Amino acid sequence: MRAVLINTGTELLLGDVHDAHLAFIAREIFPLGLRIEERRTVPDTDAIRRTLAELFPRCEILFVTGGLGPTSDDITREMVADALGLQLRGDPQLLTSLQQRVQTYGIKWMPRIARQAEVPAGAQVLPNETGSAPGFYLKANSNPRISSPHLFVLPGPPRELQPMFRMFALPILRSIVQMSGLIERQLYSITGMGESVVEAAIGNKVLAIPGIELGYCARPGEVEVRIIGDAEAIEQADAIIRSALGYSIFSIADETLEEVVVKLLAKHNQTLATAESCTGGLIANRITNVPGASVVFIAGYVCYANRAKGDMLNIDPALIETHGAVSEQVARALTEHARACATSDYALATTGIAGPTGGSPEKPVGTLYVGLAASGSDTIVKRFFFPTDRETFKHLAAQAALDLLRRKMLNSAAGHSERRRGAP
Amino acid sequence: MRAVLINTGTELLLGDVHDAHLAFIAREIFPLGLRIEERRTVPDTDAIRRTLAELFPRCEILFVTGGLGPTSDDITREMVADALGLQLRGDPQLLTSLQQRVQTYGIKWMPRIARQAEVPAGAQVLPNETGSAPGFYLKANSNPRISSPHLFVLPGPPRELQPMFRMFALPILRSIVQMSGLIERQLYSITGMGESVVEAAIGNKVLAIPGIELGYCARPGEVEVRIIGDAEAIEQADAIIRSALGYSIFSIADETLEEVVVKLLAKHNQTLATAESCTGGLIANRITNVPGASVVFIAGYVCYANRAKGDMLNIDPALIETHGAVSEQVARALTEHARACATSDYALATTGIAGPTGGSPEKPVGTLYVGLAASGSDTIVKRFFFPTDRETFKHLAAQAALDLLRRKMLNSAAGHSERRRGAP
Repeated sequence: MRAVLINTGTELLLGDVHDAHLAFIAREIFPLGLRIEERRTVPDTDAIRRTLAELFPRCEILFVTGGLGPTSDDITREMVADALGLQLRGDPQLLTSLQQRVQTYGIKWMPRIARQAEVPAGAQVLPNETGSAPGFYLKANSNPRISSPHLFVLPGPPRELQPMFRMFALPILRSIVQMSGLIERQLYSITGMGESVVEAAIGNKVLAIPGIELGYCARPGEVEVRIIGDAEAIEQADAIIRSALGYSIFSIADETLEEVVVKLLAKHNQTLATAESCTGGLIANRITNVPGASVVFIAGYVCYANRAKGDMLNIDPALIETHGAVSEQVARALTEHARACATSDYALATTGIAGPTGGSPEKPVGTLYVGLAASGSDTIVKRFFFPTDRETFKHLAAQAALDLLRRKMLNSAAGHSERRRGAP
Repeated sequence: MRAVLINTGTELLLGDVHDAHLAFIAREIFPLGLRIEERRTVPDTDAIRRTLAELFPRCEILFVTGGLGPTSDDITREMVADALGLQLRGDPQLLTSLQQRVQTYGIKWMPRIARQAEVPAGAQVLPNETGSAPGFYLKANSNPRISSPHLFVLPGPPRELQPMFRMFALPILRSIVQMSGLIERQLYSITGMGESVVEAAIGNKVLAIPGIELGYCARPGEVEVRIIGDAEAIEQADAIIRSALGYSIFSIADETLEEVVVKLLAKHNQTLATAESCTGGLIANRITNVPGASVVFIAGYVCYANRAKGDMLNIDPALIETHGAVSEQVARALTEHARACATSDYALATTGIAGPTGGSPEKPVGTLYVGLAASGSDTIVKRFFFPTDRETFKHLAAQAALDLLRRKMLNSAAGHSERRRGAP
């Protein structure tokens, strides 16, 4: 079955907001054997109706997002009704629940809020449990005089669309789709290797497997490899990829690097502290985005100013004076002092030059030192060079630090089990 | 002139990556009087050729992104050549610069890298100064036998596309477009008010102005209002919006809240420290994303564990025992101690329950206290309630904290100038 997505919203085309729905819906429908074949983004104008009419004959399932709210530029509901030749009708139950919601949140009632209680005749309401505008579903050919696909009309805010999609749209989709169950998919998240190097290591061998689809996606500090095929092809490709990439694969479950690190720490009952200069709290922020981080994360020292390095972590000003704040010596002191102050098992430290200013010939913008202190091990300090924009630099620096810790934990665990097995 | 964007990439339609090009290109071309009328996202298949052919007669300017890299799923260059009936030709100069690049970065040369030196006959190369794959431009009707728009073919990675677009595509676009110079645009970034409240305050009055276009965009903790029209209409609408929304407008220059806060601090030569529990470093991270933050940001205490609150900021364990870590009293102590430890002019503190676990009947998930200490002022502590997912909670909490500081600085500045003018 062909599925297509229309994102409505002038704000999307003006660049005022980024769309998150394509990625979300694509991932949710993949297990049903469905893929988005095409996505179109159109403004809040008559273009919505024209696009609906153009796509009706081209797909069996059509998702439409946005434009269901109370403001005057929210016209999707009218455009859909129009394209299908259906009347909009006020739903009394929806109106009551809107009135209750407004009361609960202490919002002043305004007539325009009531527009959100209207749906095209024959539509099934998709309740909105996290916002006001409901979505709706119209089965294929709802108006017998107009050929149309199954139509899911969903609200714009991701925090409203996402629970609605999972709770109310997916069950309908499951009943529509005859699942073949034959096609599988596997993702590998890789760090520490570039895209070309990854392809050189696995490309030809994987593509030699009949019926495999192979894709790459490069992001700052990460490469994602995607294989799609039947179970046998996936198994063969999986063996090739794991043997070629080894520890560079940090997840096969679409986890973030920080999720992997938090899980590894939790698994070994170990704790972490951070001393961040150039990453300015990004490592702590990424770690604490992971539910359950409080079990493993003790403290983050964002010692941004030089005097904060002294005040927070007793870094000797003479050390900074002699070697500079961006140096192997200061990275070492930061990570060791952070581990001591927080009495944690591990500590990570970053010091570098994020730019755009602050570089010098010996230490240009992009210079980075990452330190890792671990109980019972020698401190590691690595130098990196990421000459890029400020936010990408911070991301790559956090990525390098988290990956240093991940590899250290994997090596320690491997070492322990080696020793337990009596190996050298 | 009608401009359309095609994003190519199976990874986009599978939800493995988010597109950033629409927003970037839309904002870059707006000052030339151009808007993206439609955006299509298509997979790395023959759909690229079909979509090109379908859109050729529908626009005067066509942007195509992605699929120019060295891997086997990069087929955009071939599809474009095919759709236009043009041959691909190796460009010797491009080949040399690719070889140099590979040498500089110490990458192993692979034959597939050379594909990136091919462009359709007659194309103008758009050099890639931050990556390997060049882009190219083909003027309208490059092949006289096929009617086609001006065509800009650009690489997928944003950090390659963006500088290329600014340096090489924009000058060509300027020469193509006859600028009318009549339409202007103004954005207002608002925090502390919901979308419906904003519309109730300004909607009818602004829409009564002839020729004005008004749009809203709601994001967690922010509403963006956009007006488009001629200079006179913009001026009238601007007066209405400023008078109705006042201090709730934090930027009219598309700045982030953290940029505004850093600029205000810098303007008044003041410094900031943070003590973050539930936001886990997000405030420090947002602040340090702003170039020049090092002038105003001293230190961030990410005191995540209770014992870190004691170790880092001397919070009395008895205070936590008596009132709980998530309490008005602990928020007050955190912010005051952070300011004292960092000897900064201001300090912000957060403590709350991000969830998904950790709530109780008196303090459910979503409970937040934000503290603000300022030299020469009483400490402020405010309670908020944001019952949502973990990352949105952190974002809303950081937003509330930054906005508390922003309003305090504006009020202080207003108070100072009032006093200077002899007002009470």
